[in-house]
Amino acid sequence: MNVYVDNAATTAVSQTALDAMLPCFREIYGNPSSLHTPGQRAAEKLAEAREVFARNLNAEPREIVFTSGGSEADNQALRSAAVIGARKGKKHIVSTAFEHHAILHALQALQKEGFEVTLLDIPENGVVTAQQVKEAIREDTCLVSVMFANNEIGTVMPIAEIGEVCREAGVLFHTDAVQAAGHLPIDVKAMHIDMLSLSAHKFHGPKGVGVLYVRKNIPLTNIIFGGAQERGKRAGTENLPGICGAAAAFDEACANMEANAAKLIPLRDKLIRGLTQIPHSILNGDAVNRLPGNVNLCFEGVEGESLLLLLDAKGISASSGSACTSGSLDPSHVLLALGRPHEVAHGSLRLSLSEYNTPEEIDYILDTVPGIIEYLRNMSPVWDELETGKRPHLI
Amino acid sequence: MNVYVDNAATTAVSQTALDAMLPCFREIYGNPSSLHTPGQRAAEKLAEAREVFARNLNAEPREIVFTSGGSEADNQALRSAAVIGARKGKKHIVSTAFEHHAILHALQALQKEGFEVTLLDIPENGVVTAQQVKEAIREDTCLVSVMFANNEIGTVMPIAEIGEVCREAGVLFHTDAVQAAGHLPIDVKAMHIDMLSLSAHKFHGPKGVGVLYVRKNIPLTNIIFGGAQERGKRAGTENLPGICGAAAAFDEACANMEANAAKLIPLRDKLIRGLTQIPHSILNGDAVNRLPGNVNLCFEGVEGESLLLLLDAKGISASSGSACTSGSLDPSHVLLALGRPHEVAHGSLRLSLSEYNTPEEIDYILDTVPGIIEYLRNMSPVWDELETGKRPHLI
Repeated sequence: MNVYVDNAATTAVSQTALDAMLPCFREIYGNPSSLHTPGQRAAEKLAEAREVFARNLNAEPREIVFTSGGSEADNQALRSAAVIGARKGKKHIVSTAFEHHAILHALQALQKEGFEVTLLDIPENGVVTAQQVKEAIREDTCLVSVMFANNEIGTVMPIAEIGEVCREAGVLFHTDAVQAAGHLPIDVKAMHIDMLSLSAHKFHGPKGVGVLYVRKNIPLTNIIFGGAQERGKRAGTENLPGICGAAAAFDEACANMEANAAKLIPLRDKLIRGLTQIPHSILNGDAVNRLPGNVNLCFEGVEGESLLLLLDAKGISASSGSACTSGSLDPSHVLLALGRPHEVAHGSLRLSLSEYNTPEEIDYILDTVPGIIEYLRNMSPVWDELETGKRPHLI
Repeated sequence: MNVYVDNAATTAVSQTALDAMLPCFREIYGNPSSLHTPGQRAAEKLAEAREVFARNLNAEPREIVFTSGGSEADNQALRSAAVIGARKGKKHIVSTAFEHHAILHALQALQKEGFEVTLLDIPENGVVTAQQVKEAIREDTCLVSVMFANNEIGTVMPIAEIGEVCREAGVLFHTDAVQAAGHLPIDVKAMHIDMLSLSAHKFHGPKGVGVLYVRKNIPLTNIIFGGAQERGKRAGTENLPGICGAAAAFDEACANMEANAAKLIPLRDKLIRGLTQIPHSILNGDAVNRLPGNVNLCFEGVEGESLLLLLDAKGISASSGSACTSGSLDPSHVLLALGRPHEVAHGSLRLSLSEYNTPEEIDYILDTVPGIIEYLRNMSPVWDELETGKRPHLI
């Protein structure tokens, strides 16, 4: 049985999204900036796609900027807020210790330019609070950037409350909603979100398409200069097939959001119940306040990479954390931020479901994982030390 | 008859390219950074695509960086060279007055950061010389960026000679090859090119994919920070379907380059011969040293936009210049750089052919354009003044 449960890394493109893309490759292939009919047909489709995102986020079409993905959107949001802040002499940014690297590394670049960054600590349950944000905001804070839902442990932040704190303080609020978009309801107005990033390939849209929502009257700074596309704020011929596929996928995901959650939450919770019965395992992040499809656990005495390879041999595609850092030997910065010791953080497993997963697949995972854990532990000298009392169990 | 002759703006995706993309949407949809089999299958396809670009450019796979398009590649190339230059106290850049706006606007951003930019004048024939470059290079020059072929008038620069001048002077050489790639032979080693940008949708590949070739040991600077993709220099999940389509299109374009040119040059020259018979018309750029598919003329007493709309009504999709600036009322900066007076530059027509165009389509254009020019001139008070001697003819 082949079971793909790495949907937080990327998803299969839905048939609906693919159907929306196909006409744009060889039929409606004009450049949306061109005056002629093929160009104007492309421009109309671009406008329709923009409208779909605006409608589902409670934004206006002109507040939607298409980018090449979530990372680009994150980078442009932070860069823009930094430029606005610097003009006012405000060079302090509040974010969290468990943001995606697109945020953390962009913040590091800003630090080199003289910005000061406060990264909020992560509470035991993996949910940053509005109170934490409020206490971190200073006179010179120009931006708060807090992710909507964490990409590894799936916990969901109180975005509306954080938005309210920021609005009251007069500080710009950005949220990296790459994991949340299409999976959780988002209302940028009600949630007081000034800027939001999302990525199509996380909700069965194509890779290579992101959206930066930016509230009107907030001036963006280009990170790609050139032509006048996207109101002059993001140069480059628009990826029309990708954008149309992204819009179709987002519309589909938003329409089916409740149904998908109703299907996924029981599967997720069955996995959590089953896998936490394995001795010396622990769920990472709040059990309830998490994405409908996210399961993330640590198993003591197990090396995450070995676990993944053995699962892969059984047809189960999972991850230990973010795909973006899978080349790294360091343990997940998210699990460390959550307070997991290094040895424990190394033994992590993320199963991220989508509505394409079936109850049979969940049963197969539950049948397969415990035996692999046992096998790995039996081979492990560390586990031997843990079991013979030479090392204390940490979980 | 519908005739698409705006292939310099964008092209239809070839069937070969589409066939290469299709399996990557719903079958090989893993994240190339993932350890599991679906991820590794994606990683293999990514490596194959990189190999295709390397082979056709005479580069090495690790010198190929995938971006979201030509504009991003241009921006990253310039930014990277600027950072290298600044470290050595070298803050002078040589480029040309008729570069694409992705270069010109990125240079303007660098000027605001204290870089000095020399834009070379454009000779009458639209071909910048290596001697001009040599004379412009100073002790503090950190970069020469000269386009391979101009996007409006199609003239081709002596890139190998310019590369030699730069290598001798120890100055980095970047070329925006967005219009040339897939249409003209490129050998980065023989031509002494240090960095090169290209865009897939200009050679029947998909929109949203570019390549930045960067010679090994030249350190890139990120413009998108985040995950470790592209050797850490371009964050964001790779657009695998797009990249596979781009590689297939590039391989196809390079394999058919001679045959395509042999087909296109006679069609191009037939158009040039026919259209320059219209009184008070002039070809822009060298008649021979130009892209196989590029025709660009000015017609006195004609307003370019009106010409395009009437051509569109006859099914002919053309442009007056770059699609990226089509919202602008200013005349083409390329034609002004070429020395055309404002009034003349406003009356420009670019016909950019691809191998999909047929001789019948060329005949249809030749049958259609003269009547439209005559119609527009008959309506034009300016033309009346020109014909009655109240204004001097400029061409």
